[in-house]
Amino acid sequence: MTTNSATLAPELAVSEWFNTLKPLTLREHIGRPVLLHTFQLLCPGCVSASLPQVQRIEHVFAGTDLQVIGLHTVFEHHAAMTPVTLKAFLHEYRIRHPGGVDLADGKSDIPVTMRRFALRGTPSSVLIGRDGSIFHTSFGVEEDMALGARVAMALAAPLRTPTATDASADDGPACSEDHCAIPPTRAA
Amino acid sequence: MTTNSATLAPELAVSEWFNTLKPLTLREHIGRPVLLHTFQLLCPGCVSASLPQVQRIEHVFAGTDLQVIGLHTVFEHHAAMTPVTLKAFLHEYRIRHPGGVDLADGKSDIPVTMRRFALRGTPSSVLIGRDGSIFHTSFGVEEDMALGARVAMALAAPLRTPTATDASADDGPACSEDHCAIPPTRAA
Amino acid sequence: MTTNSATLAPELAVSEWFNTLKPLTLREHIGRPVLLHTFQLLCPGCVSASLPQVQRIEHVFAGTDLQVIGLHTVFEHHAAMTPVTLKAFLHEYRIRHPGGVDLADGKSDIPVTMRRFALRGTPSSVLIGRDGSIFHTSFGVEEDMALGARVAMALAAPLRTPTATDASADDGPACSEDHCAIPPTRAA
Amino acid sequence: MTTNSATLAPELAVSEWFNTLKPLTLREHIGRPVLLHTFQLLCPGCVSASLPQVQRIEHVFAGTDLQVIGLHTVFEHHAAMTPVTLKAFLHEYRIRHPGGVDLADGKSDIPVTMRRFALRGTPSSVLIGRDGSIFHTSFGVEEDMALGARVAMALAAPLRTPTATDASADDGPACSEDHCAIPPTRAA
Repeated sequence: MTTNSATLAPELAVSEWFNTLKPLTLREHIGRPVLLHTFQLLCPGCVSASLPQVQRIEHVFAGTDLQVIGLHTVFEHHAAMTPVTLKAFLHEYRIRHPGGVDLADGKSDIPVTMRRFALRGTPSSVLIGRDGSIFHTSFGVEEDMALGARVAMALAAPLRTPTATDASADDGPACSEDHCAIPPTRAA
Repeated sequence: MTTNSATLAPELAVSEWFNTLKPLTLREHIGRPVLLHTFQLLCPGCVSASLPQVQRIEHVFAGTDLQVIGLHTVFEHHAAMTPVTLKAFLHEYRIRHPGGVDLADGKSDIPVTMRRFALRGTPSSVLIGRDGSIFHTSFGVEEDMALGARVAMALAAPLRTPTATDASADDGPACSEDHCAIPPTRAA
Repeated sequence: MTTNSATLAPELAVSEWFNTLKPLTLREHIGRPVLLHTFQLLCPGCVSASLPQVQRIEHVFAGTDLQVIGLHTVFEHHAAMTPVTLKAFLHEYRIRHPGGVDLADGKSDIPVTMRRFALRGTPSSVLIGRDGSIFHTSFGVEEDMALGARVAMALAAPLRTPTATDASADDGPACSEDHCAIPPTRAA
Repeated sequence: MTTNSATLAPELAVSEWFNTLKPLTLREHIGRPVLLHTFQLLCPGCVSASLPQVQRIEHVFAGTDLQVIGLHTVFEHHAAMTPVTLKAFLHEYRIRHPGGVDLADGKSDIPVTMRRFALRGTPSSVLIGRDGSIFHTSFGVEEDMALGARVAMALAAPLRTPTATDASADDGPACSEDHCAIPPTRAA
């Protein structure tokens, strides 16, 4: 398979993994579509809307080769959302797909993967195509029907030649009532 | 376009049309996917679930060439669900897509198109592919995500060679609480 | 029991009853609270919200002496909402409490009881206290919690001395998206 | 006011308060109804259902003298649900009523107040009457309409003579899917 490495999605930077025996990389998933779901455990919109939606995605697309990966991207209340709390959260909410803690490198309140993908807050989802490039990025929660259609398109899509514009994030909902957008003063 | 007429979806039989200046046929839509949504105005599951879902489909797939067609398939309470009542119903529920009244030919309580497609009750949906053959038939209400994915697949699908088995209806939910399945004694 | 007849709620005027062996009057219910729920079968807000809410009221207050009475107050689409259609509607939606068709006297598009209570559209609810006077009138749908509290207060309330101002309707939601408010030009 | 101290509700035992300048006691609230809402921040049923319901109670009964008090009763995942995490949780979920952390005394995984009230898990609610005795205890989430009616009754109730049986907890829903019932082996 030939891919244009200049336009591949950025790689994950994870400090701790859950629900998987070994660390995952996006590179090793080239050939399969990946849904990367980023969240914080104290983000109301993540808990009430995007995490249940991800579980519906897992149910509807169970027979396909879609890979779902969670990523805990803490950019606020760092002392309140530790890996210990995350582990109990994943247990109580019965979240079974592989997930990681986005790497905090001390250079910013915003963790590394979140900066690499230029995500604006939580919940954000990045759908990565079979060719390893970004198919779609969203901030906030899409309608189930639109998301189901988009995932089906990623599953059906022939290998594309990735282009530079693929990596740009679109303008999703502002999610203002959840206080989960990155404040402008902290943005990478 | 070459199609195998033996395996095309059956044609509609309609006694009265709404929201369209001229009668529609499935034949003339070959080349476009069609979602045929069948309902009764006194079917609780249709009013609360499948009709709002059809409106979400119209919204999400507004930019595509999907054609939505409604069909009022009265198989019970015939005196209660006349075209006069249907017209007011469509007005109050703001249903704008083309729709027809399934032809009652006096040979059965079940109208003609409903018999041709061997539908089991309301709501039922028939997704017809670009080649004019039946892509999927469902009885009851699917999850939005699964339906969004299915419509996306019908939109993306290359022309298939229709086969005889395509026309068979699948086993959807029983919808028993809505009293809308055709009673065995009346089934065509 | 002494009541001040000048301030009693107006009496019902009904042309046909359902779910009861004999006609009902508000007078004969003095001593019990009555919830009078007015609706139209083609009113979307009635079907999706107020009728299910009335069924929750019947469930929660099943052990009390609250009497629920439905009233089909047709003020538009008269040919579409006949008693034949209403009867099938009540059957399919499993509405079991006593209900009547508000009397159309030919003097107005608005039926008689609706005019007597000065109701503004559908759904409207009139809660009548043990003393036979109007406890509360609402247009549109209240929150379950507020309505549950109000019914509990009517059940708990000692007999009041009705006053003239009790009969005034309050300002509920406008229900504009359902097209169910009485048009100003037809108002009684 | 005369009360029978033997049958008053047990007092709160709290290690840390939020949203209040001074500690609260149930004793000082005698004369007002109190809704004591117990929860854990990683309890799915609390986050999705009972906390939003408490906020609806605050809205509907804003004009009354009902006092709402929250209590974080951690009986599992103690390291994951610390006061630091609770504080961020209350901030992000915009919970403004006074709340406390139920006292962990090291004698049991179950904190002190939870043991005093013999609560079975989270969410649990204790409605305390104007006389300081327990009016109703529930485990799980009641319907809004029933809860609204119950709070209205507590607001309307004259002072009762508390009796010993008032303090018994009723049998609410099992909440089994949330893993939030106290395991039998840990029960006080």
